[in-house]
Amino acid sequence: MVKKAPRRTAQRIIETSLSLFNRFGEPNVSTNLISSELRISPGNLYYHFPAKDELVNALFDQYLAQLNPLLEAAGDVRDVEDAWFFIHSLFERLWEHRFLYRDLNDLLSRNRRLETEVKDLLARKQLAFVQLIAGLHHQGALQLEGAEREAVATHMVVLLTWWLSYEYVRNPRHALEEDSADQALIGGAQHVLRLLSPHLVSGSREHLQTLLAHYIPS
Amino acid sequence: MVKKAPRRTAQRIIETSLSLFNRFGEPNVSTNLISSELRISPGNLYYHFPAKDELVNALFDQYLAQLNPLLEAAGDVRDVEDAWFFIHSLFERLWEHRFLYRDLNDLLSRNRRLETEVKDLLARKQLAFVQLIAGLHHQGALQLEGAEREAVATHMVVLLTWWLSYEYVRNPRHALEEDSADQALIGGAQHVLRLLSPHLVSGSREHLQTLLAHYIPS
Repeated sequence: MVKKAPRRTAQRIIETSLSLFNRFGEPNVSTNLISSELRISPGNLYYHFPAKDELVNALFDQYLAQLNPLLEAAGDVRDVEDAWFFIHSLFERLWEHRFLYRDLNDLLSRNRRLETEVKDLLARKQLAFVQLIAGLHHQGALQLEGAEREAVATHMVVLLTWWLSYEYVRNPRHALEEDSADQALIGGAQHVLRLLSPHLVSGSREHLQTLLAHYIPS
Repeated sequence: MVKKAPRRTAQRIIETSLSLFNRFGEPNVSTNLISSELRISPGNLYYHFPAKDELVNALFDQYLAQLNPLLEAAGDVRDVEDAWFFIHSLFERLWEHRFLYRDLNDLLSRNRRLETEVKDLLARKQLAFVQLIAGLHHQGALQLEGAEREAVATHMVVLLTWWLSYEYVRNPRHALEEDSADQALIGGAQHVLRLLSPHLVSGSREHLQTLLAHYIPS
């Protein structure tokens, strides 16, 4: 048998870990489970990732690499439909790395890097939503000034970040399974977007209602 | 030495467990730590609570006994100031049992009773906020109809339930410490109340602004 290149193996370890963490929760997945799922030796896994935290960090890097460019595009949102796709795309990234949110406090208390980086990420989400609101205000789609912008952005951050936890409490056995993705993503994106509803000018509010009626969580 | 009555010991075990769970997180507190903190034998602890889950359940019962009568009073809210005290009181109860929210998903996945009861509690919170909105609407303090009531109530539930998690991410080392209580409670109650702001009629909205300016998180 030809030995697989190390790079390829590292990538397979990352993908399998992500899948197992998402399904069972990171605290419930040992490195032994990961290596047996991959049919590689624990020593081979250890060679690539000497600690489980390094796997978690690699997955967090992957998450940030997808999320950061998206957050930086918040200022380009021009209307309600842009806002819908922006928020839905954020939820898609969250969903792919939902293990991070499933046991967030536990991960933060054990991993110094996450402790700092998740806090910074929260600040970037806040900034992105303030920019989104400012952009819509600038385009005349909504009316929202000063301190109110920060407050609504905070509500959007909390709803975005803990929506999957809300769904999990409502249905612990199914909410985070792969076939619940559509419902969780559409429901979450709708609720985050609805926070803007009272501040939209009249044409944009009808636009929002049309969008909400079009995308109905299954 | 006179032997302490069992009832008294059970109560001391509950109080000490609550304090340790809140400080260190339930998964990080063993029954041995609880008995050593109380200076009783592990056997004595076991006599009162044969499993740690039974301690968690007793604390959850205590939490429900405080929270349920409060939630049932949601319909009595008549104006913005009532709403403020109602929401702040909810946060006080949450704060006292904050370990439940610190590792909520983990607790739900291990404890069948919590899995069912926390879901039911979420539904009762939703109902309470719908009643609060209906009461304010009836009194002419706000304008909010039909499906919009359910949506705003959902936003209030998510913000109420995960506000302490939000504070925790922003400051993992201090947010859940006893001396952060005021900041967490006032900040959280303000943000939940602000969700009503766009729907308030003009006199009530100024009333809200006065309240928000009066209670400033330290």
